[in-house]
Amino acid sequence: MEWTREKRYLPYSKWDADTLLYLQAQAANSPYQMHYHLHPISGLINDPNGFSYFNGEYHLFYQSYPFGAVHGLKSWVHFKSTNLVNWINLGLAVEPDTMADSHGAYSGSAKEIDGKLFLMYTGNHRDENWIRTPYQIGAWMDKDGKVKDKTILFKNPEHITEHFRDPQILKQGDTYYAILGAQDKAEKHGHIDVWKSKNLKNWEELGFLDMGTDPMGYMIECPNIVRVDGHVVVIFCPQGLDKKIAKYEDIYPDMYIIADDIDFENHKLINPGKLHNLDKGFDVYATQAFNAPDGKAYEISWVGLPDTTYPTDDENWANCLSQVKELAIKDGKLIQRPVSAMNDLHTDEKEVKDQVIAEKAGQQYELKLTIKANQKGNLHLAANTDLTGGLQINFDTENGKLVLDRSKTDRQVSVDYGETRETDLAKNSDLKLDIFVDHSLIEVFVNDGEAVLTGRYFEDQANTKLAFDQPVDYSGKLWQMKTIL
Amino acid sequence: MEWTREKRYLPYSKWDADTLLYLQAQAANSPYQMHYHLHPISGLINDPNGFSYFNGEYHLFYQSYPFGAVHGLKSWVHFKSTNLVNWINLGLAVEPDTMADSHGAYSGSAKEIDGKLFLMYTGNHRDENWIRTPYQIGAWMDKDGKVKDKTILFKNPEHITEHFRDPQILKQGDTYYAILGAQDKAEKHGHIDVWKSKNLKNWEELGFLDMGTDPMGYMIECPNIVRVDGHVVVIFCPQGLDKKIAKYEDIYPDMYIIADDIDFENHKLINPGKLHNLDKGFDVYATQAFNAPDGKAYEISWVGLPDTTYPTDDENWANCLSQVKELAIKDGKLIQRPVSAMNDLHTDEKEVKDQVIAEKAGQQYELKLTIKANQKGNLHLAANTDLTGGLQINFDTENGKLVLDRSKTDRQVSVDYGETRETDLAKNSDLKLDIFVDHSLIEVFVNDGEAVLTGRYFEDQANTKLAFDQPVDYSGKLWQMKTIL
Repeated sequence: MEWTREKRYLPYSKWDADTLLYLQAQAANSPYQMHYHLHPISGLINDPNGFSYFNGEYHLFYQSYPFGAVHGLKSWVHFKSTNLVNWINLGLAVEPDTMADSHGAYSGSAKEIDGKLFLMYTGNHRDENWIRTPYQIGAWMDKDGKVKDKTILFKNPEHITEHFRDPQILKQGDTYYAILGAQDKAEKHGHIDVWKSKNLKNWEELGFLDMGTDPMGYMIECPNIVRVDGHVVVIFCPQGLDKKIAKYEDIYPDMYIIADDIDFENHKLINPGKLHNLDKGFDVYATQAFNAPDGKAYEISWVGLPDTTYPTDDENWANCLSQVKELAIKDGKLIQRPVSAMNDLHTDEKEVKDQVIAEKAGQQYELKLTIKANQKGNLHLAANTDLTGGLQINFDTENGKLVLDRSKTDRQVSVDYGETRETDLAKNSDLKLDIFVDHSLIEVFVNDGEAVLTGRYFEDQANTKLAFDQPVDYSGKLWQMKTIL
Repeated sequence: MEWTREKRYLPYSKWDADTLLYLQAQAANSPYQMHYHLHPISGLINDPNGFSYFNGEYHLFYQSYPFGAVHGLKSWVHFKSTNLVNWINLGLAVEPDTMADSHGAYSGSAKEIDGKLFLMYTGNHRDENWIRTPYQIGAWMDKDGKVKDKTILFKNPEHITEHFRDPQILKQGDTYYAILGAQDKAEKHGHIDVWKSKNLKNWEELGFLDMGTDPMGYMIECPNIVRVDGHVVVIFCPQGLDKKIAKYEDIYPDMYIIADDIDFENHKLINPGKLHNLDKGFDVYATQAFNAPDGKAYEISWVGLPDTTYPTDDENWANCLSQVKELAIKDGKLIQRPVSAMNDLHTDEKEVKDQVIAEKAGQQYELKLTIKANQKGNLHLAANTDLTGGLQINFDTENGKLVLDRSKTDRQVSVDYGETRETDLAKNSDLKLDIFVDHSLIEVFVNDGEAVLTGRYFEDQANTKLAFDQPVDYSGKLWQMKTIL
């Protein structure tokens, strides 16, 4: 089947229900499907949207194209949770059903305001000549889950191109602010554009956020501001970023800056630090973060990349979301940790201590290890019997290096961008690893969240051996993880 | 919208995907939706089908009409589980896509045979004059969930009317048997018809099962044979049963007989006992039971009745399944108990002892009580503040009676068939109750499963007070229950 433009933008009402039921069953039956991470009900998912707390529960949406593994006509699918781990699927919530979002209800954010959830997102509109206009839209979700009263808030101003999207709604004092990804017309550089409003109706542009950096490639997507332990963290995706400014390996990076504070009115960060990669692994993009009413900062990421094919494209579905992580700052560095309710998914706790941890570890587990200092070795995951295939984590706790290697897995992804990712460790030190495996997703938390390496991998699901390649001095625990969806 | 015959039997491919996504979201967002029982993804569900153990997991399907709260063109939707409590939705599995099941892939059963799951079900076919032919169909499901190789096994023989359906596949020694619900042409009575086959291809009718009873109304639906503690239990739905033969209160009963054994070749029960109602409450029908490989007997029921409207019809969805129950026989009586993994759903355990158990008990809980002998009172559930509305369980542990009363709930169901159901208790004895509440479903296990009273109820979801109407001498525990779907 050829995915023509016409086909990708066909209204959902022109697809037949039998096809959708078939695609839903196909995604559900895939051996690669995740079972304790949010994943597609059918088709392709991308950015998390509207991550928020409303009416006593956490809410989350994701970008969805239900009819195949392509970026077609996008909508928002809705989930809610009481603990950030067990999610209820509430189905299609924001449809591309107005002029302003006719070609996609694109990414955005949400905030509880006066007993309703205010959604602010980008409507993608194209005219008959395929000229794009990005409308920033406000909408309101009731407690019964119905999204109503879509209103156009503003368009891209004269000095910004059609690349103007992904608003995050924020409040400081009695003023609302929105930050958006933008490309300026003059230089075609990426920026975060700051807007303000007193009433959510009339909006005024304040200007590009001064982050104390060189130009940020040709576009910034999915900017987020979140307050963490007395600092301001800006998370964003600078597409086309010059690698001299900051090194990265994926096709597009997902980065962050820590600052002392933000001055919205003067659209500048106060004492911003350097650019860092948010994740040291593969496939993490479009992270969305927010401050819950208790002040805690949470983030969730799309695990998937733009302009990238994955093996499940053959099964008409693609991508997933990461687990939710809680953010902290320690010694000036961003710390990302599993939320406490992840422990509620545990079953079958096992102490582990042998070279072969499990001949059959299964497809849904958490493995927590402390590897003693001054050792080198390889941890094999999703491996075959003789450990020649599968994932590898190469560690060197003497010289301080950890490498996640997916080169030996069954079906490769994005080999042009490298098959390994690495992170530095403290030298001559014990190494703590907290590893989550979910069928075709691995998330490795290093030293209590000082680094995270995430990645998709595609291995024969019969291969679930979990073993070191030589005797290693370590201690650890292994849990099977319950299914949430 | 009028549900014409044409509309109800419209092929799924003639419905549009946008409508289906809307219906799925509507069902998911309903305040009445169950969250730890299997429920519709959209539309109407009825009989559990294909309850079985295959490839190391439990499998279950249900009858589904995805496009509204009516009995339209039916298909099978597939779920699997490792513990009979946490189910994964695998989506549409058996579609009405051949001549033989053109008007519905109706109910049936499943059994693991030679590394595949054999499905045996009734294909509902109607010709241009709307004359029905019930085809009994065999099909095979692979480990990847794909259903293939549908074959017509047999039709209704000359002496049986078009009412011939719901095959249960069984094996004894090296012979396969199937039992089906049937109506004879001569007398128009309900029967269980017994068939045999050596190879699953050639089938031979043995005759109507002699259960030692008077004629069973005008039709028997959903017959099941299951071995429990050295006995044979036959569970079935005798439609139009004369209430002189056995008392029942729902529009159609779901009943059982315990026998010492079954003689398939001579199609008779050995030493059959009397007819009993399987459930003492409301809305239980089409129960399906099977023996797992470990010999244990499990059952699951449709909670819903034919020819009955429910308040969620207005929301375009209807019905749910019961929890899975494990069967036992004690003192010649059938015992139905929750499976052990129901305990895994517990959160927030609380000892309870006061007259007011909880001002806000929530919508998903288990309440386990022991009420001392020789007391009378009312337990109010899903109640408003002054206890004038909601569900009531009236108990009398002196004279030995328990009544489930839904007459004071918000929106009534089937009032013509009575708003209360009762069961006898041992006199002057302590009463043990194990009560499961899930938004609009209550399941009351009495004295360790000696009786079960199930029922749907429709109450304002803000009303969750749980209290006795007077001081009662009792002890108990209350747990919140986790969401499974």
